[in-house]
Amino acid sequence: MKKPLILVTNDDGITAPGLRALVSYMKEIGEVVVVAPDSPQSGMGHAITIDNTLYSKKVMIDLDDDKTLEYSCSGTPADCVKLGLQEILKKKPDIVVSGINHGSNSSINVIYSGTMSAAIEAGIEGIPAIGFSLCDFNWEANFDHAKDAIQTIVKEALTNGIPQGVVLNVNIPKLEKEAIKGIKVCRQAKANWKEKFDKRTSPMGKEYYWLTGEFELLDKGEDTDEWALANDYISVVPTKFDLTAHHAIQKINNWDL
Amino acid sequence: MKKPLILVTNDDGITAPGLRALVSYMKEIGEVVVVAPDSPQSGMGHAITIDNTLYSKKVMIDLDDDKTLEYSCSGTPADCVKLGLQEILKKKPDIVVSGINHGSNSSINVIYSGTMSAAIEAGIEGIPAIGFSLCDFNWEANFDHAKDAIQTIVKEALTNGIPQGVVLNVNIPKLEKEAIKGIKVCRQAKANWKEKFDKRTSPMGKEYYWLTGEFELLDKGEDTDEWALANDYISVVPTKFDLTAHHAIQKINNWDL
Repeated sequence: MKKPLILVTNDDGITAPGLRALVSYMKEIGEVVVVAPDSPQSGMGHAITIDNTLYSKKVMIDLDDDKTLEYSCSGTPADCVKLGLQEILKKKPDIVVSGINHGSNSSINVIYSGTMSAAIEAGIEGIPAIGFSLCDFNWEANFDHAKDAIQTIVKEALTNGIPQGVVLNVNIPKLEKEAIKGIKVCRQAKANWKEKFDKRTSPMGKEYYWLTGEFELLDKGEDTDEWALANDYISVVPTKFDLTAHHAIQKINNWDL
Repeated sequence: MKKPLILVTNDDGITAPGLRALVSYMKEIGEVVVVAPDSPQSGMGHAITIDNTLYSKKVMIDLDDDKTLEYSCSGTPADCVKLGLQEILKKKPDIVVSGINHGSNSSINVIYSGTMSAAIEAGIEGIPAIGFSLCDFNWEANFDHAKDAIQTIVKEALTNGIPQGVVLNVNIPKLEKEAIKGIKVCRQAKANWKEKFDKRTSPMGKEYYWLTGEFELLDKGEDTDEWALANDYISVVPTKFDLTAHHAIQKINNWDL
């Protein structure tokens, strides 16, 4: 069987340990091409670069490896996918994987996630895509307990395909491998961030803010990604980019418009 | 009856003609507070500022008006909503309106839209919210043909409420007022952008790209926003931020995970 072509990207930047781990896991499955941001892009949501120029550079990061093509890009994760698909790859990849993100992208975090925006961008182009995140913000986090699950999910996606219009949002709890109970397919939990702005004064006397906040889970369901993660499961949320709230159409049709 | 409190924002920046038009329409309905980016933020998707500081400044743009509080903010549209709700307003607004965007946010454009990210941010916080966009990129575009429809939609939203978890994505065709046939509640059309990267060389000999592309409609439905706009209607798409593809859960549950 021909080796699948796998495009790997992320939002933490091309040198992030999470990406390096994902690249190494994917090399055991297929032919890997990396197109990833040259600097961290966390919290970029689905931003694209339309008012500025984009740079791309061929790089070599794993020095013992001359087979994996790697490109850094000055843009956002969505830019990387667009550039990778249109300019760098000569053919459609079999799958696009993004991550492994340093930090959770479960529940409402999917909206702010650069990791998931890369997967969604690929999904819009009709390519199977998965975003992987580890619920650990530590730059030195250990990813190896997730290796088997990540490889299993990618192989199953390659074998079965992912339904059109759907990409997968996979979150991995911060646990030893033995403590992980399994993989659960879930819905996105209802949650938000209770923002707190940390107001400070600069040495020049100018007031500024840091955005901080606390995560607030508003969902008691046991079929959610938050429940799965809190109960030691890896969560898989099928995620779509048709944002239509079909159930609301009829209601708003009753307005006096 | 007490005047409703309306928070106005956008992604084209606080001086954009589209925002100035929306502010003037909203002043006829309620008490208006503006918190908008100090520079254009188009294509920012749902980006937030987490690795940098935020500045906010009280400004006065309509010089004949000392009643409307206006603040510019160094962040993204989603930052503006967070900052407006948490730091600037002393109470929850009755509605958040974003726009009027200079350019369409119909179909897949909703994913890249800073205008809609502001509305979605408010929706996440449980506040009724609407994004307005005019299908005309011209900075000198005329917005006045949309005034009645915009005021009608905002008033109906204030009267009826918008279902929890839903925000409205309103797009207005570039037409004379008399040519507009009405308002249609729609679903998001399936579409994507066929990217083309315009590759150039800088004076210093460095290669760079501009992201360009062509819009590709992949949907023949007559219940979509693209159909409505092409047929001279204003489109209203109820839009949600629970991205779960519920129909795919069962399918992926059959994988060997």
